Amino acid sequence: MANANMNCWPLIVIGGSSERNQETMGAFQEFPQVEACRLYSKFSARPTSIEHIPVVIEKAVRSSIYGRPGACYIDVPADFVTLQGNVNSIKYKECCLPPPVSMADTPAVCMAASVIRNAKQPLLIVGKGAAYSHAEDSIKKLVEQCNLPFLPTPMGKGVVPDDHPNCVSAARSRALQFADVIVLFGARLNWILHFGLPPRYQADVKFIQIDICAEELGNNVRPSVTLLGDINAVSKQLLEQFDKTPWQFPTDSRWWETLREKMKSNEAVSKELASKKSLPMNYYTVFYHVQEQLPRDCFIVSEGANTMDIGRTVLQNYLPRHRLDAGTFGTMGVGLGFAIAAAVVARDRSPGKRVICVEGDSAFGFSGMEVETICRYNLPIILLVVNNNGIYQGLDADTWEKTLNFQEAVTAVPPMCLLPNSHYEQVMTAFGGKGYFVKTPEELQNSLRQTLEDTSKPCLINIMIEPQSTRKAQDFHWLTRSNM
Amino acid sequence: MANANMNCWPLIVIGGSSERNQETMGAFQEFPQVEACRLYSKFSARPTSIEHIPVVIEKAVRSSIYGRPGACYIDVPADFVTLQGNVNSIKYKECCLPPPVSMADTPAVCMAASVIRNAKQPLLIVGKGAAYSHAEDSIKKLVEQCNLPFLPTPMGKGVVPDDHPNCVSAARSRALQFADVIVLFGARLNWILHFGLPPRYQADVKFIQIDICAEELGNNVRPSVTLLGDINAVSKQLLEQFDKTPWQFPTDSRWWETLREKMKSNEAVSKELASKKSLPMNYYTVFYHVQEQLPRDCFIVSEGANTMDIGRTVLQNYLPRHRLDAGTFGTMGVGLGFAIAAAVVARDRSPGKRVICVEGDSAFGFSGMEVETICRYNLPIILLVVNNNGIYQGLDADTWEKTLNFQEAVTAVPPMCLLPNSHYEQVMTAFGGKGYFVKTPEELQNSLRQTLEDTSKPCLINIMIEPQSTRKAQDFHWLTRSNM
Amino acid sequence: MANANMNCWPLIVIGGSSERNQETMGAFQEFPQVEACRLYSKFSARPTSIEHIPVVIEKAVRSSIYGRPGACYIDVPADFVTLQGNVNSIKYKECCLPPPVSMADTPAVCMAASVIRNAKQPLLIVGKGAAYSHAEDSIKKLVEQCNLPFLPTPMGKGVVPDDHPNCVSAARSRALQFADVIVLFGARLNWILHFGLPPRYQADVKFIQIDICAEELGNNVRPSVTLLGDINAVSKQLLEQFDKTPWQFPTDSRWWETLREKMKSNEAVSKELASKKSLPMNYYTVFYHVQEQLPRDCFIVSEGANTMDIGRTVLQNYLPRHRLDAGTFGTMGVGLGFAIAAAVVARDRSPGKRVICVEGDSAFGFSGMEVETICRYNLPIILLVVNNNGIYQGLDADTWEKTLNFQEAVTAVPPMCLLPNSHYEQVMTAFGGKGYFVKTPEELQNSLRQTLEDTSKPCLINIMIEPQSTRKAQDFHWLTRSNM
Amino acid sequence: MANANMNCWPLIVIGGSSERNQETMGAFQEFPQVEACRLYSKFSARPTSIEHIPVVIEKAVRSSIYGRPGACYIDVPADFVTLQGNVNSIKYKECCLPPPVSMADTPAVCMAASVIRNAKQPLLIVGKGAAYSHAEDSIKKLVEQCNLPFLPTPMGKGVVPDDHPNCVSAARSRALQFADVIVLFGARLNWILHFGLPPRYQADVKFIQIDICAEELGNNVRPSVTLLGDINAVSKQLLEQFDKTPWQFPTDSRWWETLREKMKSNEAVSKELASKKSLPMNYYTVFYHVQEQLPRDCFIVSEGANTMDIGRTVLQNYLPRHRLDAGTFGTMGVGLGFAIAAAVVARDRSPGKRVICVEGDSAFGFSGMEVETICRYNLPIILLVVNNNGIYQGLDADTWEKTLNFQEAVTAVPPMCLLPNSHYEQVMTAFGGKGYFVKTPEELQNSLRQTLEDTSKPCLINIMIEPQSTRKAQDFHWLTRSNM
Repeated sequence: MANANMNCWPLIVIGGSSERNQETMGAFQEFPQVEACRLYSKFSARPTSIEHIPVVIEKAVRSSIYGRPGACYIDVPADFVTLQGNVNSIKYKECCLPPPVSMADTPAVCMAASVIRNAKQPLLIVGKGAAYSHAEDSIKKLVEQCNLPFLPTPMGKGVVPDDHPNCVSAARSRALQFADVIVLFGARLNWILHFGLPPRYQADVKFIQIDICAEELGNNVRPSVTLLGDINAVSKQLLEQFDKTPWQFPTDSRWWETLREKMKSNEAVSKELASKKSLPMNYYTVFYHVQEQLPRDCFIVSEGANTMDIGRTVLQNYLPRHRLDAGTFGTMGVGLGFAIAAAVVARDRSPGKRVICVEGDSAFGFSGMEVETICRYNLPIILLVVNNNGIYQGLDADTWEKTLNFQEAVTAVPPMCLLPNSHYEQVMTAFGGKGYFVKTPEELQNSLRQTLEDTSKPCLINIMIEPQSTRKAQDFHWLTRSNM
Repeated sequence: MANANMNCWPLIVIGGSSERNQETMGAFQEFPQVEACRLYSKFSARPTSIEHIPVVIEKAVRSSIYGRPGACYIDVPADFVTLQGNVNSIKYKECCLPPPVSMADTPAVCMAASVIRNAKQPLLIVGKGAAYSHAEDSIKKLVEQCNLPFLPTPMGKGVVPDDHPNCVSAARSRALQFADVIVLFGARLNWILHFGLPPRYQADVKFIQIDICAEELGNNVRPSVTLLGDINAVSKQLLEQFDKTPWQFPTDSRWWETLREKMKSNEAVSKELASKKSLPMNYYTVFYHVQEQLPRDCFIVSEGANTMDIGRTVLQNYLPRHRLDAGTFGTMGVGLGFAIAAAVVARDRSPGKRVICVEGDSAFGFSGMEVETICRYNLPIILLVVNNNGIYQGLDADTWEKTLNFQEAVTAVPPMCLLPNSHYEQVMTAFGGKGYFVKTPEELQNSLRQTLEDTSKPCLINIMIEPQSTRKAQDFHWLTRSNM
Repeated sequence: MANANMNCWPLIVIGGSSERNQETMGAFQEFPQVEACRLYSKFSARPTSIEHIPVVIEKAVRSSIYGRPGACYIDVPADFVTLQGNVNSIKYKECCLPPPVSMADTPAVCMAASVIRNAKQPLLIVGKGAAYSHAEDSIKKLVEQCNLPFLPTPMGKGVVPDDHPNCVSAARSRALQFADVIVLFGARLNWILHFGLPPRYQADVKFIQIDICAEELGNNVRPSVTLLGDINAVSKQLLEQFDKTPWQFPTDSRWWETLREKMKSNEAVSKELASKKSLPMNYYTVFYHVQEQLPRDCFIVSEGANTMDIGRTVLQNYLPRHRLDAGTFGTMGVGLGFAIAAAVVARDRSPGKRVICVEGDSAFGFSGMEVETICRYNLPIILLVVNNNGIYQGLDADTWEKTLNFQEAVTAVPPMCLLPNSHYEQVMTAFGGKGYFVKTPEELQNSLRQTLEDTSKPCLINIMIEPQSTRKAQDFHWLTRSNM
Repeated sequence: MANANMNCWPLIVIGGSSERNQETMGAFQEFPQVEACRLYSKFSARPTSIEHIPVVIEKAVRSSIYGRPGACYIDVPADFVTLQGNVNSIKYKECCLPPPVSMADTPAVCMAASVIRNAKQPLLIVGKGAAYSHAEDSIKKLVEQCNLPFLPTPMGKGVVPDDHPNCVSAARSRALQFADVIVLFGARLNWILHFGLPPRYQADVKFIQIDICAEELGNNVRPSVTLLGDINAVSKQLLEQFDKTPWQFPTDSRWWETLREKMKSNEAVSKELASKKSLPMNYYTVFYHVQEQLPRDCFIVSEGANTMDIGRTVLQNYLPRHRLDAGTFGTMGVGLGFAIAAAVVARDRSPGKRVICVEGDSAFGFSGMEVETICRYNLPIILLVVNNNGIYQGLDADTWEKTLNFQEAVTAVPPMCLLPNSHYEQVMTAFGGKGYFVKTPEELQNSLRQTLEDTSKPCLINIMIEPQSTRKAQDFHWLTRSNM
């Protein structure tokens, strides 16, 4: 239904509901579905007649992609399937126009440029909204023209490539904590960005917020400048300012030095962890080897706890809209669905492109059965299950056995532990895909190489790691309590 | 809380709820109020602690005025009133910045200007959104510079004065039905504008939609051009186009002739109705005499069925944001509340300004007791109750008596009839205000003159009209069914 | 629709909604009404076709009166009014059977009887549920046969007459606080009964809960015995126990003595307050004189703060289901609607019966305009407005004037104060009813006598009292915080 | 929390929500969860403080098991986990009393007995409610004492054993269609029982409804007698009637003859299908062999389309509350969760008891990953996946290959088809359980025998059947449209 030129994808859920004439009688699956979907959707409705269907579908598609995008729900009663209607009474609707584009107010843009020019420790944060608005070219140009450091959010990765010299992901905490001016390109100041508040930020940091959604502006902080509009359009407006009066943030500034230093020391720690030879492997070793072989144009899908968090810092994205993860809600169980959707798009639009789906073992448990779908349609997906026998951490097989022997009760097993040494790769082979059970860096390297070469089948690599493996020391606890 | 420079008014409802520690126990007025307000508000929340109050209030105020404005709800549990907190732990929040302004995409603005230039039968429709964005100067300039006919929606009245020579309200149906290009300035294509569909419009009319809300664009019609942004900013963008390449729609065009002709004939019919000497008076006579004496700067508040609909066509607004009526929802009972709010603003900002509140008798019945509030604070409000003994129509006192005598049952009285000859003016005098019971044009003129001169007290004029009085013949039925 | 033999009244709200084929388009008054009514009703639905209407109505009526009674909502789209259907395709539904009656488990009934027999300080509490189930005969018999003290809840008043010698309302706090066994007949342990917790009750009081609603049993306390079933049926089961093995609680017990003593002293205080000659009158004087003339069979409707609370203690009910007040929710604005409903029932079923509606002045302000309805149908209603110029308390006219002179701002008037000396009686005379403005006991007596004699018209007596008049000293604050 | 003597299990879902002081700020997983659970639960609440937790939990547990049982939701904010509180300020609550028992009105019971005595074609329907109320002994006695034919609903199976001579399941449609008196023991007249309407029932059939929920009585039909109360208590009341005046429905009646005849012919058809030697097997062959080896005391859990429907007719239950299936809502994905819950109960209460979980292959796909949980706790579960390569029907492997070769697109595969020959048993072996892939009756018999003997591990038997295998011809279509 989406216009081919749109470059955006409506998200519509169509649900079947019970026969209308049996409502209130205890019909099969009778439930107020439109009402139940209200909290989860931008628009939730049931067409009231066959003639009404095009009206509702057009509105759902349009609502889904206009303004801040979001999912919409359409309810179709069972009796519609067999309902007789006069085909001439149905007025089909053309698909809606591409989403309207708006720009920021010119004085606000000037003020934003001026604030940036006067920054001592500037930082750009590139969010999901930048990816949605296809702002990659303009933001990259801005980064390079002004020599500004930038940080992507999880789903903003790849808008500017992760290996761009101005990307300061490796000094994320430091960059956030000491920046004096931060420009947000479609990135919300929610928990992912620690609400924009101390101690994770300077109390007097100046935020320049660029967002498509007016109500988002001013959330949690009082910004210095708000730029309401399409992220790409506003980025171009900013660029114009720096075209008119060129300016560059000096490479030899104290800020760039600080950031480069911190990046270097962080990368050294990661590298050391990655190069540890002891077995079982740790997260960094695993991701180091994966990163080495990752095709530059692949989709990366990820979900899990440590798996997603650490993977995000090591695995690099080079293309916009090529990373999908659990996102703001941190919902587990979405990974395989995301991978399937990406693979279907990839197969149609860029044959040969692969989808790498990096799953924690617990995350995989939510919807692992989707490997049947993957095999059914022979989708170009490589699943990596990073297996630590649990959520955050598990037990190794020996300890497990002892625990059970000691006290043969359910209660003896800590609630976050899963069965040790589960052979998730066999869940893939059960449906005809390829499976690998790997315990060493070499096995990991080999299995990856093979599966990247052999495009005939989907594959799952079950990667055993140290059950107690964790993240390297962090400056701040995950959900640092902000002093509101 | 609203910033003095903002020129916009947050709409926040603060509700008290039961003590938190008694929830689920059957506390006094225990109810899930935040949840109950969800469907009616842009933002509905309860602060979770005293420290949290500033966060929630700031967000409610901001949500109420950023983007499309709307009401917000804040829930305050009873135990907060006496809760002890450390005053130092409370971080007050500065009021939010004025709402961000966005502009339309430049190419879309050019296209819109081009469509307007090529129109044979152009029409501007000025909606509530134009008033909210303070677009009066730019739209008036556009109307005059391009010599374009315009129509206000009910709450868009006064953005350009109703007596402007380009206002074609008196030919509303004709203008809508034959326009080939329509520019909507913050006006929605909902039932008030007949959804933008035939038979009330040409099937191939080209709509140019200007709106602050992306999701509004494309509703019910597929527009030719969508201009997403602040109405005032976008109007200025359009003006720039016509500044660069001046253009005027010719006064001697066939379209202007048609409209002027229709306006003339419609005004003649209204005038004839207004000048009828027979008693009881009809609506047109009443409004004709009210209009004659109405101060040019007054607020006009109105609610009712025929009273609001006919009154809107006769009573003129000359200032933006000076008309409040039942609006999109057609909710009855809001009139006196609106009048009180307007009067409080008027008293503070423009002493001497009056609020004229024109009520149908049925509408007055919903919240007539608010005259106590009006008298308590001695607010500068003149209430006109246009009294036809019923809703749409009533019975005269004689028929009423006979009906009751004939069959002494509740069922003998048609459900839309109210008690004939109710002395609503006494509801005002009961609280010390002034009251008039008028039956003739002369009495109406005199009472109006007196009350406009005597500013010492609020006043209610109860105007008796013909119980069967109706609207003049219309081309289309009120809610003409559109052929979707 | 309700079966004549049912003795119960379904409460169905039928709402009109917008045309179905315009839904999602911005139709007139388009709103998800069924969903919006969900929180407020037992059953909320829209018929999906004309054929479906009888199904939904039958279910709404039945749901409203079966089990714990409650309101139901039916939504009727505008287009149903003119919809064409085949009359033969519509299957009318017979009205449902009278509500099913259930009884308590026999062993539980035996245990309850045993607990009662062993009580040292027993108390019966008669709730609204007892009235709904028509349990008046059986509970009265139980009270008398066992010589037990009883207390009615606000809407349980009249199930056993308030002047019954065993009624201990005048010692309410004492009775609750020291009872060792309490039998609840359809009375909930919510805020009205202070949750059944200390300090308002003994910590070890034994509750015997009789209720039609299983989920109500055990709320806030752990009862000694739960008797699930129709209140009347269960009361008869208890009576059978005391028929089989007669037992009486001794009149000369210490408990009866304590209660009688406390009642006497409380009544003395009330009497003293009532007999005060100073003007303006206080609440007790007013209610004393009203009580003297109240017809024994009248309906008493009441709403307000002190007016309702104090009125409840002085004005007596002798018949079940003859008292309607703001109830559990304490909703203001319901009084006149209740009075109209009661008057319509009274006129049909017991001609000559009067409805006395006792309103605080603030409460009257919520829906005072309903006097038009009262006058339109000439309903047998006497409205008493107990007028203290405010909510809880107001200012006298002199102080008011001074306040305004001193500082001419809205803020000078305390928010709970209403306009002093409002002539609410003129709101009644405006519609042809009778009105009295009374300031002395004699005027009150005379106006009451006249209006009770003259049944030709509705009447409003506006009774001026001391603006600072309050309740007599209470043992506990209104909403005493319980130590949960 | 549930009292050991209660014999009933509260169903409480405890959800974690975001930190309270971050609400409205975009906290991790911030969502109005209490509100979102409203439509799905009997009671949904969040404790407002640590002291409030026992109050909410007690109410949730009680609400879940009192009256008609249902799930309840409790929301626990993240910050509660680390909140400091004074342990002495927390008042623990005792667990609530066992659910109150109510009985039907005696006259109604007499009338019911009389209607039964006069029936020519009586039928008892035993529903889930009978199982919940532990009515097995009294209903069995009633069936036998009066020699009445009975039918269980899906979850009512086993209240009276399925192999009881009076069970007429094998003539279900016939029994429903021609019965003149039907007694419902806790069975709702919803879609599962075809709403109680023609053509599935006689238009003048007399229903006697026994239910714990008043609002259920009268749904869809106007019953002859309604008996409100605990199913077991009411069954005993009925028994008393037949004890007082014994009566038996004659074995040689025309009705019993009709039913027996129909059962015989239906059983013959099933037997013929079951004994088909052709491969792949059909549903009847599979279930025939499963039934032969099923332990008499096992739990049977089932979900799927044909698998559940046909399985229900062949697999027999001999104990009450030992069958769990998708139930009224037909929700897929619940089977493994049900099996795990049953297994945990079984392991604690009746060691050695097995849980047989019969899954369609599509149904298994919803939550098949739960085998990890099953293996982790080594639960006594035997999973049977009845595998027809699809939903309702699939393709065989050859056709599948051809389809794909012919047109290599996703669209070539019918949407209801799953991958042929999926090795679901390997999903079990991946976690250390036992797996069998069986294609013949002999393989099925052997694998069943082995797994029933070897109790050391969970097991999954993947049973390949004819992809086009369907149900035997039915008198009525599944969801026969009733003539309302």
